[in-house]
Amino acid sequence: MLSLQRFCASVEYDGTDFLGYQIQAQGRTVQGEIEAALAKLTQSAVRIDGAGRTDAGVHATGQVIAFNLAWRHTQHDLHRALNATLPHDIVVSKLTTTNRDFHPRFGAVSRTYRYQIVNRQWPAVLLRRYAWHVKQPLDVPAMNRASQTLLGQHDFASFGKPPQGNNSVRHVTQAEWLQPDGQEPSLLNFYITANAFLYRMVRNIVGTLVQVGLHHLTEADVADILSQKNLRLSAPPAPAHGLCLIKVTYPDRPKSNG
Amino acid sequence: MLSLQRFCASVEYDGTDFLGYQIQAQGRTVQGEIEAALAKLTQSAVRIDGAGRTDAGVHATGQVIAFNLAWRHTQHDLHRALNATLPHDIVVSKLTTTNRDFHPRFGAVSRTYRYQIVNRQWPAVLLRRYAWHVKQPLDVPAMNRASQTLLGQHDFASFGKPPQGNNSVRHVTQAEWLQPDGQEPSLLNFYITANAFLYRMVRNIVGTLVQVGLHHLTEADVADILSQKNLRLSAPPAPAHGLCLIKVTYPDRPKSNG
Repeated sequence: MLSLQRFCASVEYDGTDFLGYQIQAQGRTVQGEIEAALAKLTQSAVRIDGAGRTDAGVHATGQVIAFNLAWRHTQHDLHRALNATLPHDIVVSKLTTTNRDFHPRFGAVSRTYRYQIVNRQWPAVLLRRYAWHVKQPLDVPAMNRASQTLLGQHDFASFGKPPQGNNSVRHVTQAEWLQPDGQEPSLLNFYITANAFLYRMVRNIVGTLVQVGLHHLTEADVADILSQKNLRLSAPPAPAHGLCLIKVTYPDRPKSNG
Repeated sequence: MLSLQRFCASVEYDGTDFLGYQIQAQGRTVQGEIEAALAKLTQSAVRIDGAGRTDAGVHATGQVIAFNLAWRHTQHDLHRALNATLPHDIVVSKLTTTNRDFHPRFGAVSRTYRYQIVNRQWPAVLLRRYAWHVKQPLDVPAMNRASQTLLGQHDFASFGKPPQGNNSVRHVTQAEWLQPDGQEPSLLNFYITANAFLYRMVRNIVGTLVQVGLHHLTEADVADILSQKNLRLSAPPAPAHGLCLIKVTYPDRPKSNG
C-alpha cells in the first residue's frame, strides 16, 4: 500500500469565471476544480487546504495549497498530470512535497495582494478583466499619503470582518501605489501586505483610498475612519476583478524531499 | 443638410474573439463591429479605413481608423456614443476630426508591434490570451543579436508576402527584446517598428528569432535567411495571440478642428 505524501503547490488562476476559491454546494470554484482534477488523477477523494479564500472574481498568481496524496509516480509526473487535467484558467506553477504538518493558511506569516486600476477616460480593453476602470483623474500622491496611515498594527474593523472569531487586529507592513513602467501609462498598482486580512479588507481599503484620490476624503478622514472601528464608515468596496493574491510567505519554505 | 466631417480614431481591441480587423462576408471582425456601431448611431452606412489589417487573434492598443460622418452633436458625444455602442472588446481611446484627405494606412510613416512571450515551464494564467507560452529557456541576448540583423532597409521576402503588388522591401527601425519590470519575471516583449510590414512578417520573424533563442538557429542563419528572399526558409509563424499593434505614426498629427 502506498503511503500518503503531503504536497505543497503554488497556484495561479483567472478569477473571472469562478464563484471564488472556496468550494460551494453549487457553482464553479477554484478549490472544486483542483479537487476534481486530483480525484480524476487518483480515483479517490482529495481535500485541499488553501492559504487564502479569495472572493468571486478575484485572481491569484501566488495562491498556496497543500494536500495529502498517495502517488506512485514522480513529483514531476504529478505536476504535469495536474496541469494537463486542470481547466485553462488554473495553473499549478510550482509543486513540491512538504512536511506532514504544513498548513498553507495557518502556517503563513504574510499575504500580499495587488489591486490594479486603469485611470483614464475610457477602459483599457486588454486589462478589462484585471483592472478597475476609474475615469476621473486620481491624486496618487494623496492616495499614497493616506495609505501610510494604514501601516502598522491596528484594529481594522472599519475595513472588514474577521473570517472567524472577533479579532480584527491586523499588522500591515506595506501599502503603496506604484505606476509601473510599461505600455499602459494609466495603470496604477496598489500593493498591500499584512500578516492576514479581514473579509473584503483590501477592496474596502481601495474603495476608500480612491475616494481620497478623488478628493472626496482627506488623509485625516482615513485615519479617523480607521480609529472609529465601524465598518459602515468605509467607502463601498472596489470591484473584485482588480484584485489579485500575488504572494503568501512562510517562516521558512516548506521542506521538499521530492 | 449636415455636411460630412472626417474623423480619426485610435482604437484598442482584444483580438481573441475576432476573425481579424478586415470585414468579411461572414464572421465577427473589428471593422464590421465598428461599422455596425456607426450605422446604428447614424442610421446610415459608414465605411471606415484602418491603418493595419491585423490577422485573426491579433490585438491592438494603437490601431488608427478614419471615417466620414454627418454628425449633428459634439465630437465628445460621438466618442461617448461609440464606446457605449461598441462591444466590450473594442474601445475608441481617442477621437478627433481630421483633414478630408487623411488616410490612416497610406498616410502612416511607421507601425510598431509588440510580441509577448511567457518563457517559463508552465503557462501564466493571466497572460494566456496575450502572450505565447514557450517552455524551453530562451537565450535572449542571442535573440537580440539576431534582431539587429533585421535593422535597416531589406527585402523581407523570406518573412512575408506583400499585401498587394510584389515589393517586399521594408525599412525596420527598431527590433529588440525587452524584459519589462513587473510581476511576471518570465515575460519577454519584442518591439518591432518599420515603415510598413508584409503579411505575417512579425509572426514569421518572431518564430525565427525564437529558434535562435532555442539555439536551433544562429545569428548568421538569420542573416542568411534574410538574404535568400525565400519565404520557405522562415520558421513557422509565432501564434497570433502574442501580437499587438501598439502604435501607428504620421508625419504630423491629423489636424483637429473639433
